[in-house]
Amino acid sequence: MAIANTSRRVPEPAPLIEALHAMLGERCSVNPGILDRHGHDESYHETHKPDVVVFPESTEEVAAIMRLARKHSAPVIPFGVGTSLEGHVAALEGGVSIDMSRMNRVVEVNAEDLDVLVEAGVTRKQLNTYLRDQGLFFPIDPGADATIGGMTSTRASGTNAVRYGTMRENVLGLTIVTADGRIMKTGGRARKSAAGYDLTRLFVGSEGTLGVIAEVRLRLYGIPETMAAAVTPFPTVADAVNTVINVIQAGIPVARIELLDDFQMKASNQYSKLDYAEQPTLFIEFHGSEKGVAEQVELVRAIAAEYGGGDFRWSVKPEERTKLWQARHDAYYAGLSMRPGSKGWPTDVCVPISRLAECIVETRKDIEASGLVAMILGHVGDGNFHVTIVINPDDPAELRRAEAFNDRLVDRALAMGGTCTGEHGIGFGKIAFLEREHGEAVGLMRLIKQTLDPENRMNPGKIFRV
Amino acid sequence: MAIANTSRRVPEPAPLIEALHAMLGERCSVNPGILDRHGHDESYHETHKPDVVVFPESTEEVAAIMRLARKHSAPVIPFGVGTSLEGHVAALEGGVSIDMSRMNRVVEVNAEDLDVLVEAGVTRKQLNTYLRDQGLFFPIDPGADATIGGMTSTRASGTNAVRYGTMRENVLGLTIVTADGRIMKTGGRARKSAAGYDLTRLFVGSEGTLGVIAEVRLRLYGIPETMAAAVTPFPTVADAVNTVINVIQAGIPVARIELLDDFQMKASNQYSKLDYAEQPTLFIEFHGSEKGVAEQVELVRAIAAEYGGGDFRWSVKPEERTKLWQARHDAYYAGLSMRPGSKGWPTDVCVPISRLAECIVETRKDIEASGLVAMILGHVGDGNFHVTIVINPDDPAELRRAEAFNDRLVDRALAMGGTCTGEHGIGFGKIAFLEREHGEAVGLMRLIKQTLDPENRMNPGKIFRV
Repeated sequence: MAIANTSRRVPEPAPLIEALHAMLGERCSVNPGILDRHGHDESYHETHKPDVVVFPESTEEVAAIMRLARKHSAPVIPFGVGTSLEGHVAALEGGVSIDMSRMNRVVEVNAEDLDVLVEAGVTRKQLNTYLRDQGLFFPIDPGADATIGGMTSTRASGTNAVRYGTMRENVLGLTIVTADGRIMKTGGRARKSAAGYDLTRLFVGSEGTLGVIAEVRLRLYGIPETMAAAVTPFPTVADAVNTVINVIQAGIPVARIELLDDFQMKASNQYSKLDYAEQPTLFIEFHGSEKGVAEQVELVRAIAAEYGGGDFRWSVKPEERTKLWQARHDAYYAGLSMRPGSKGWPTDVCVPISRLAECIVETRKDIEASGLVAMILGHVGDGNFHVTIVINPDDPAELRRAEAFNDRLVDRALAMGGTCTGEHGIGFGKIAFLEREHGEAVGLMRLIKQTLDPENRMNPGKIFRV
Repeated sequence: MAIANTSRRVPEPAPLIEALHAMLGERCSVNPGILDRHGHDESYHETHKPDVVVFPESTEEVAAIMRLARKHSAPVIPFGVGTSLEGHVAALEGGVSIDMSRMNRVVEVNAEDLDVLVEAGVTRKQLNTYLRDQGLFFPIDPGADATIGGMTSTRASGTNAVRYGTMRENVLGLTIVTADGRIMKTGGRARKSAAGYDLTRLFVGSEGTLGVIAEVRLRLYGIPETMAAAVTPFPTVADAVNTVINVIQAGIPVARIELLDDFQMKASNQYSKLDYAEQPTLFIEFHGSEKGVAEQVELVRAIAAEYGGGDFRWSVKPEERTKLWQARHDAYYAGLSMRPGSKGWPTDVCVPISRLAECIVETRKDIEASGLVAMILGHVGDGNFHVTIVINPDDPAELRRAEAFNDRLVDRALAMGGTCTGEHGIGFGKIAFLEREHGEAVGLMRLIKQTLDPENRMNPGKIFRV
């Protein structure tokens, strides 16, 4: 909802489009529908169309496109499948949207080394389907079937970061194309290295502002022998969070541990016709050996009981696991169903886990006081939670209330030692908050941006204004 | 052994020394013994003395020192305890060595959040002694009792990186002092964040070339309920490594898994009067619940048996664990004892684990063919291994042979998709190899260096020549 800079950089894009068309033929499009689709993500932020969309099929083509864009002083916006949430792909100053969807080859799987090299347009579900026969999987799961390139760019994480880490921990190396069209490799296949600056981590989370990610080497994991799902309700949010703190501190390697608040549980019961207690509820997943999982379940059950945890249902059978977790899977649409015709405005913050219960309770009070409808859902093992505001998109006053609420939510998280975004990123929606969180260090980020992209053509207007 | 640039930058350091002395009194030293001690690390690289050593007691003092150094155009070298191995602290162009040993306060422990804020001069053993009563520990263990600041600067890891990761994964945030004397915070207390560039990871492993690390926020872990140690010999290095590959792929969360080759085992038997089989041997440590550890041990034992693993000794009792691992602990001195009067020249590489057996076998052959004495010891879970060349420091011909061997070792690792250093870093000893490994990307690293330290005063001559 932040106001974006909409000055177009290339008043006459025709020569650039002509050159791109000469190179790519039909893989260069100015079709209005395609331009529109590439001008927005899944968030509520407004659409800003690029001048042209291209569909490269190789890293070399990306480099050639970058050199043409440079010649014509055009902005470049890398595009995965557009499932980001803070306006990341909006072409605020026009330019070239590079759609990576045709770069969707799994280049190389090294099963013994647990690594894989993929082109940036491979989606995480595609990758896991490809890997299944080899008993391997890539765990990072942000919900949407995002591309690996997009997930890398936004430092995505999701439900099982508590066990497997985020994209930060699971990207081993990158092939990048710089703003001036050179191809470079960062990182490598070794599991660890102390050789020079960590350029890989600099590009992970850089949201397309430093270059285009063309290939990604990822860490893989063996598919666990046994998986179990469990669900248990608590009298209060604090009881649920205290259970989580004890589970983490005891080193129990839960794979996912999610909190749905009472409002969310009520919505899920209605939407999916379930009979859960309408209380704050933990959804937990366990990965390991058969014995290991059974032990983990018992340990967590015992800790939950200490904090007043109620009926503890669990199962290792796939169909029962799916059923147990249904309320979690349906959470988003259940929330929207509470208010027909509404849209969801998702936001996220992350705080130290000791402050999580307090942060959620205060946020719920703020929602009520603001007269908003919103659901809270948390990746509580990491102290990360989402608020999805269920808004009427045609009511400007409500939109302003939602914006003011989001502002207070971020301030609350920052005051508790947290961050303005745990996993969605800055895009153009949270630019003001980055400065609030990182202060002078944003100056350092800007310096790096200016060094790697001196003409400010790489996804301009995102993360900060240069 | 690489030839360093030894041109002094400050031909007349007296005015700077006077100004530092006026500010710090006795905490500013030009004592020849102190200058010498700060001119070298534990490696075999030659000594380069700084002009002056200062001992700040606060981040503000570090900033004031940096501003004075800037005024006098003097190089600055951050110094922990000098346990690095590639000449990291050598004052190649003279200047100010900032000894961080008086900044050794544990600032804040957040037990519920499993994080701690320390000043950079805190050592890892000091930290773990401090934390013990709270049932917490910091796992990264590079062997030496290094400072947390030094470990951060070199992206240290060590024996239990296979379970807990390296400094890259365990630093949550930093307080840095920039080349021009400003204080900045990076990262934060949230377990994950998607807010802006990952400046924290840029400084982790930057070897003092981008600024001074004054404070570090680390991730902590609960002390495991049970620990077990195990030792088992194998017919060949390949059998041992294949066991490790299977253990990792099965997701068995071993805490440490170390390989000593037959030469190393023979040395350890002689040195510590032990009776181990003189075969390639795995030393393993397990962390977890009592039941969990017992299960892990059984799983690993079964995999080892498939690969011809011999006598599998293990224990959970502290004194027996120490005894079982004694050969591993004594490895360095056992190696040196094979050749009285010798010195150790440690080097390290890291390769994809599928290539590890081949790399070690070829390296052992190369050692024999070169007429060198050297021991091989590996953090095999990560594909990382060390060669310590046991050299006669007074024999120039042998030194040249060692240098040529090191060159071939790195080339071998790079040809297998590995890195020129898994955990020691570049310093000035491996500058040539960084370029060989990362090619054009080194240009990008240099650009970043020039942006953050335009006068090239931060630990000049390390990582690359600007």
